Amino acid sequence: MILAVDVMGGDNAPQAILGGCSKFLKSETFSDAELMLFGDEKALNQFKIENESLSNRFHLIPTTEVIGFDESPTEAYKKKKDSSLVRAFEAVKNGEAQCVVSAGSTGALLTGAILSLRRQKGVKRPVLASQLPTMNGKSVLLLDSGANTDCKPIYLQQFAIMGKAYMECVAQVKDPRIALLSNGSESEKGNMLTKEVHSLLSETKNIHFVGNAEARELMSGNFEVLVCDGFDGNILLKGVEGASKMILGLLKESLYSSLRGKIGGLIAKPAFADVKKKMDYKEYGGSPFLGVNGGVIKAHGSSDEKAIFNALRQGYNWIKNDLERVIQETIDNNQIDE
Amino acid sequence: MILAVDVMGGDNAPQAILGGCSKFLKSETFSDAELMLFGDEKALNQFKIENESLSNRFHLIPTTEVIGFDESPTEAYKKKKDSSLVRAFEAVKNGEAQCVVSAGSTGALLTGAILSLRRQKGVKRPVLASQLPTMNGKSVLLLDSGANTDCKPIYLQQFAIMGKAYMECVAQVKDPRIALLSNGSESEKGNMLTKEVHSLLSETKNIHFVGNAEARELMSGNFEVLVCDGFDGNILLKGVEGASKMILGLLKESLYSSLRGKIGGLIAKPAFADVKKKMDYKEYGGSPFLGVNGGVIKAHGSSDEKAIFNALRQGYNWIKNDLERVIQETIDNNQIDE
Repeated sequence: MILAVDVMGGDNAPQAILGGCSKFLKSETFSDAELMLFGDEKALNQFKIENESLSNRFHLIPTTEVIGFDESPTEAYKKKKDSSLVRAFEAVKNGEAQCVVSAGSTGALLTGAILSLRRQKGVKRPVLASQLPTMNGKSVLLLDSGANTDCKPIYLQQFAIMGKAYMECVAQVKDPRIALLSNGSESEKGNMLTKEVHSLLSETKNIHFVGNAEARELMSGNFEVLVCDGFDGNILLKGVEGASKMILGLLKESLYSSLRGKIGGLIAKPAFADVKKKMDYKEYGGSPFLGVNGGVIKAHGSSDEKAIFNALRQGYNWIKNDLERVIQETIDNNQIDE
Repeated sequence: MILAVDVMGGDNAPQAILGGCSKFLKSETFSDAELMLFGDEKALNQFKIENESLSNRFHLIPTTEVIGFDESPTEAYKKKKDSSLVRAFEAVKNGEAQCVVSAGSTGALLTGAILSLRRQKGVKRPVLASQLPTMNGKSVLLLDSGANTDCKPIYLQQFAIMGKAYMECVAQVKDPRIALLSNGSESEKGNMLTKEVHSLLSETKNIHFVGNAEARELMSGNFEVLVCDGFDGNILLKGVEGASKMILGLLKESLYSSLRGKIGGLIAKPAFADVKKKMDYKEYGGSPFLGVNGGVIKAHGSSDEKAIFNALRQGYNWIKNDLERVIQETIDNNQIDE
């Protein structure tokens, strides 16, 4: 079991990435895993010195290029052959590793996954999934969270199938309830796309489809998987992000406008920290990209050590529980003419 | 200037509706307006007694039926001829009043607006708009917020035109900035629909189009009008609603789990109330339904007196500034082949 890590991707690279790797290697749970680290030679050598005792479980591959957040993903991916990201993907493509973990540019990661690893047989569109916290302290997988803007019904059916496989293999949730994002919970609600998807999902074998869900139910805990196209997934995720920022921002502003508020805010600080922790993406690790030949985990751009550690844990479960094979089998079992 | 009020619509009807009407009639600002009140005879008679001094400015029309939230809108609208909502629409249709205000079922209101008042000439699809608070203490108009799930590009172009007219005539915002909801702010981002709309809006005369906006910018104050189809509008609005509830719910839960939290929460209470007020839809009144022959304001189902008062104020501005004529002129000026 070998994970290929892009040490140079993300706002806090390479320190936070290497810190997460070190934490991962030191954990008993993952003692049967090895890491391939792609990145700046100096940083890797420093890592080697600091983790000498674990050196039989990591391989250092110095690279000379980095793909930035502001570059055109496709161009950069094709041009920067010696970048940490391209080299990590090549390792999975060549069978030297089984899963890529990167906190770098999402666009470059999706490009790399499709160009280097290619779609699994029968998969129409690979899909980016995001795991979010719910009111009951558990989590929900939203997919597509941004990879495919215009979708056909069969794409969303496959998202549901792949989402189920991911939740079972990686998040260890048995028979997750699957809902379809719509503008009303009644089965007759929806646009042309979701109405067709609703009947497709009702007929899909071996999934626990619970029908339409409204956007306000996202974090209700009423289901473990929420399916939508990548355009709507983006709108829902960013809408939630904007609303959270607005509310916490207004609260802060209002608290700081009076002495009384400042005192109250200070006393209530642990509660705010608690909420922030509960809403924290870092607890839930990265976003998996499902449907290509190999594991792909996109960690958040601002990932710290803990977030990287959690992303590596996801990659570990992915390989250990053979997610790729499970997806292949369920896709094969649900072959439908387009 | 006469407004037709559905006294029986909404969770707090008829008391809150009549309370809002009374407040409206007593305000100096609206002394040139009259109200037609449609509803239960007993409630209307009580209103008459309590507002005797203003009796030259209201007309009471007793009705015997009510359309509920759980009824099929089209069926109920066609069957309940003596309902407060149907009678209010008939009054506008017959020229006895110029604007309907109701806090009842949205579906029945939209049905009534289309069946009784009919689309304005050249308007492809009437549109429901929602006014929301922004970080800078102003507001943004989101449209379509739920009336049309599947849209052609020209529909969204007309939403922009009607949204501008509404903001100028009713919200008194000059030359509002208009943005298009998309999955990225760059002009090349979007799905098939929004890409076409982007080029249409770039060519539309006399509007201040500022390009694509992401969902997280909804309440940023960077624009005054945000255009999207009714499916995405629903997802964005309900996503924001769900996130707000989740954050405030988690905070409350966390505060109440410790004595320290309880004390801090108590001291910080005015700040919470302040935020709640800033996020309060009641401050912004109801949702206008634009593009039919007559004014239509949908007040929130749980409207209190103040919300109804604000909805009546919107209706007043609608009539006073002849929104219907302004929409007709701008639609005529932007005739485009489909």
